[in-house]
Amino acid sequence: MSKELVFGHQKPDTDAIVAAKAFSYLQNEIGFDTEAVALGEANAETKFAFDHFGEELPRVIKTAANEVKSVMLVDHNEAPQSVSDIADVEVTHVVDHHRIADFATAGPVWYTARPVGCTSTIILDLFTENDIEVPAKLAGLMASAIISDTLLLKSPTTTDFDVNALETLAKIAGIDANSYGMDLLKAGTDLDSKSDLELVDGDAKTFELGGKTLRIGQVNTVDLDDVFARRDALVKTMQSEIDAKGYDIFLLLATNILNSDSKLLAVGEPKATVETAFGSKFAADDTMSLPGVVSRKKQVVPPLTDAFA
Amino acid sequence: MSKELVFGHQKPDTDAIVAAKAFSYLQNEIGFDTEAVALGEANAETKFAFDHFGEELPRVIKTAANEVKSVMLVDHNEAPQSVSDIADVEVTHVVDHHRIADFATAGPVWYTARPVGCTSTIILDLFTENDIEVPAKLAGLMASAIISDTLLLKSPTTTDFDVNALETLAKIAGIDANSYGMDLLKAGTDLDSKSDLELVDGDAKTFELGGKTLRIGQVNTVDLDDVFARRDALVKTMQSEIDAKGYDIFLLLATNILNSDSKLLAVGEPKATVETAFGSKFAADDTMSLPGVVSRKKQVVPPLTDAFA
Repeated sequence: MSKELVFGHQKPDTDAIVAAKAFSYLQNEIGFDTEAVALGEANAETKFAFDHFGEELPRVIKTAANEVKSVMLVDHNEAPQSVSDIADVEVTHVVDHHRIADFATAGPVWYTARPVGCTSTIILDLFTENDIEVPAKLAGLMASAIISDTLLLKSPTTTDFDVNALETLAKIAGIDANSYGMDLLKAGTDLDSKSDLELVDGDAKTFELGGKTLRIGQVNTVDLDDVFARRDALVKTMQSEIDAKGYDIFLLLATNILNSDSKLLAVGEPKATVETAFGSKFAADDTMSLPGVVSRKKQVVPPLTDAFA
Repeated sequence: MSKELVFGHQKPDTDAIVAAKAFSYLQNEIGFDTEAVALGEANAETKFAFDHFGEELPRVIKTAANEVKSVMLVDHNEAPQSVSDIADVEVTHVVDHHRIADFATAGPVWYTARPVGCTSTIILDLFTENDIEVPAKLAGLMASAIISDTLLLKSPTTTDFDVNALETLAKIAGIDANSYGMDLLKAGTDLDSKSDLELVDGDAKTFELGGKTLRIGQVNTVDLDDVFARRDALVKTMQSEIDAKGYDIFLLLATNILNSDSKLLAVGEPKATVETAFGSKFAADDTMSLPGVVSRKKQVVPPLTDAFA
C-alpha cells in the first residue's frame, strides 16, 4: 500500500489540523500508511493547543501530487477549499461535517459525513468503532478542536454527539473543558497582532452560489469594537482581494464569543441578495447586526445559498 | 420530526430495493419516521427474494416532493439516477457504494460510503454500530442483495466485508447461501419472458466517453445461447434505440453466471475502439467473447474509458 497524505482545508483552523492528525493516527493503526499535513500555517489558537499538549504541528504542503498518488480529506470536501492540485490525485477517504459540493470521484470511495459540530467528534466515533484507544495528548487536541468549532458548545452547530465527545476526550486528556476552553478561545482572539489581511481572510472560504463567487471570512473576538474600529482599513483590504481574486462579494462575519452575537461587513455586490438572505438591511457603513448568529456553516451559508439560488 | 422517504436508484435491482427497506427499518428503530419506497417495479430476481422470505415489496413512487420535504438515498447518489424531482427535496442521509458525482447538498449531511460490493453490506455494519438486531426475514433479503450484487461473491467488486456480511446474514436468515443464491440468480435470468427491448435496455446505462455516447446493457443468463439465439432481433432493437436516442454505439454484455464468462454484442461505431479496449476482435456476427468478465463497473467501463480517452 503506497503512502497517502491526510489534510484539512486551506486556511486551517484547529479542527482542520487536529482532524488530519487524528485520522492519520487512526488509519495507521488500522494498517494504512499515512502522514498528516496542513494546507497552511496554524493560527494562534491552534498553536496554543499544540503548545499546551506538547505536540508537534504537521508540516505545510503546497501540492500533493509531487509526493503521493492518493489522499484522504478531513473537515472539507469541496475542491476550491482543498490542495491546489487535488484534480491530480485520487481521493480515497473523506471525513467531514460540511455540505457536499463540487466533489466527485472516478471510483467508489470511503466517505463518512455526519451533521455534527466538529470533524473530531466523528473521528472519536471511528476510534470507538475500530476499538482503538485515543492517546491522552491527541485527546487534548481533539477536545480543543471541538471547543474551537462549537465555541465551547455554544454554537447552534453543537449536537449531543459533540457534548458527549468533549466530555469523553477531556476525561482522557485530564483537562477541565470549561477553563481550558476559555483560555483556548481567548488565545485565538488576539486581533491586535493580526494584519488587516489576516483578519479578513485568515479564516475565509470561497463559495460559488447562483453564478456568483462569495468570499466569506469570520473572526472571533471578545469585543466587536476591536474589529470595527478598523472598519475602513478592512474594507480597503477586502476590495483589494476582490480586485485581485475576482470575487463578486466579500463578507466578513465578526463574532463576539462572549455573548454569541455577530456583525456582518460587506464589500462588493450583490448586497441586496445578502439583505434578502437575512431579512435585514445594511447600514450606511455596510454593516449588518446578526444577533444570535455565530455559525457561518449553519446560519450564514444556508440562507445565502437559498437567496442566491 | 416529519416523515422521510428512503429509496434506491431508478431501474431498481435487488440491492436498491432491499437497502431501502433495511435502512428504513434501521432509521425507524433509531427514532426517525421513514418509509421505504422504490423508483420502479421490482425485477424477477427481486420478486423471487421477497416471495421466498414472505415480505411485501415497497410501493413505487414517481415523485417525492408531493409527499415529503426530505429523503434518504441508498445505493446511489447521482441526481440523474434518482427520483425525478430530487432537486425539490432535501437529502438528509446517503448510504452508498458507488463513486460520488453530480451530488450536492445545501447543508451538512449524513453520508456513509464504503468501497464494498453491496450497499446492504454497509447497512449490516450500521445495524451493528447501533446495536440493533436484524430480523430474520430482513436478513434473508439483505443476503439476497449481496448475492445479487456480487454474483454469489464471484464478481471482482466483492470484498472481505461482503463475504463476512453474507455469512452473518445467511446464519440469521437460516439459509444456505450457495444453494439459495443459485436459485435467486436463476430467477433473475428468465429471459423468455423479456421483450427484446427489456433484454437489451432493462439494465442499460449511458456513459459519455471521449466525446462518444455509449449505451451499455447487461443481462445475466445460465446459457449464453438463450441470448444469442435472438441475436438478429436484438441487433434490430439496439439499432432502433441508437436511431431514437442518438447513442454512438450500443453494447450488450451477456454474462453466464454459472461459469463467469461474458459475450459482448456491439451495434454502432467505433467498434475498433472497443476492440482496443479489450485487446480482442469482434467476430463476423459483431460478438466478442470476454472470458472471466462479469462486472460492467469494474471490468468493462474502465478499459473503455481508457480506450476512448
